[in-house]
Amino acid sequence: MLRIRFLWIGRTQEAYLREGLKIYQQRLQHYAHIVTEEIKPQRRWQSLPEITRKQAETKALQERLLPGEQCILLDEQGQQLDSIGLSHWLENFHLQSVPQITFMVGGPYGVEREAFPQQTKQLSLSPMTFSHQMVRLILLEQVYRAFTILNGEPYHHR
Amino acid sequence: MLRIRFLWIGRTQEAYLREGLKIYQQRLQHYAHIVTEEIKPQRRWQSLPEITRKQAETKALQERLLPGEQCILLDEQGQQLDSIGLSHWLENFHLQSVPQITFMVGGPYGVEREAFPQQTKQLSLSPMTFSHQMVRLILLEQVYRAFTILNGEPYHHR
Repeated sequence: MLRIRFLWIGRTQEAYLREGLKIYQQRLQHYAHIVTEEIKPQRRWQSLPEITRKQAETKALQERLLPGEQCILLDEQGQQLDSIGLSHWLENFHLQSVPQITFMVGGPYGVEREAFPQQTKQLSLSPMTFSHQMVRLILLEQVYRAFTILNGEPYHHR
Repeated sequence: MLRIRFLWIGRTQEAYLREGLKIYQQRLQHYAHIVTEEIKPQRRWQSLPEITRKQAETKALQERLLPGEQCILLDEQGQQLDSIGLSHWLENFHLQSVPQITFMVGGPYGVEREAFPQQTKQLSLSPMTFSHQMVRLILLEQVYRAFTILNGEPYHHR
C-alpha cells in the first residue's frame, strides 16, 4: 500500500477545516497509508519579514524530507493539472515503486522551490490563490478523488 | 452596497462545509449584501440519467434569474481567472452599476451554458474538478478574497 504523508506548517486553525480534513483522511485510508504531520511554527517566525519567514518555513519543511520519498510541493507557481492528471502522477509513482509520497504545504508566503531536491514536483491547485489553510482540505479531496479515478469509482463525474 | 446572491441546488450536506460557509458569509457582509439560496432538488432528479438531470437542474437555476442581474455560472469549462482577475470582475460590475450579481453552482453534472442569457459569465475555479459541495466554500472564500484585494486589505498575500 502506498504511503502518503501530508506535511504543513502550523495547526489547522478553523474547527470546520479540521473536521473536513478528518473526513478525507478517513476516506483516504482505504487507498493508502496516510500520515499528516504539522510542523510547530516558531513564535519568532510571525514577526519576520516576508522573505525571511518564507526561508525559515522552507528550511523547516526541507529538514523533514526523508530519503527516497517523492516530494510534491504545493505552490501557486507549480504545475497546473486537472484531477485526471493528478491521478496519473499517483499511478506513475506507484509503477515506479516510490515507497512514499509527501505533499508539503508552506505557510502564507509559500515555499522556496530551490531549496528542494531536483526530482521534487510542484503542484498548483488553481490559478487562484487559496488560503494556505483551506489548501489542506482541497488537497486531501483531490488526492481522494485521484484514487477514486484510478479505481474507476463513481465519485468523479467527468 | 453591491448585492450578491449565491444560488445552488440542494442543501450543503456536510456540517463542516455549512460551518465554513457561515463564516465566510459573515465576513462577506462587511463588503456586500449577501444572500444564499438553495433550490430544493426534486426527488425524481436523482434517478434521472446524467443529461436529463443536468437539464432539469439547469432549468431550475434559470427560472431563478432576475431581470438586470449579472449571472456568473460556475463551470469547469468557464474562464480561468486568478484571484486578482476575479476582483477586477467585481470592480467592473460595481463601475457599471450592476444592481446584483448572482453566482450559480450546478449539481454534480454541471450546468447547460446555452440556456442562459448571452451576458452570463462563466467562471472556473480550477482546472481540477472540485466537489460541487466544496465549490460553495471555495467560491465564498474567493469572493471574500476579491473584496479584500479591492480594499487593499492584508488577507491576500500576493
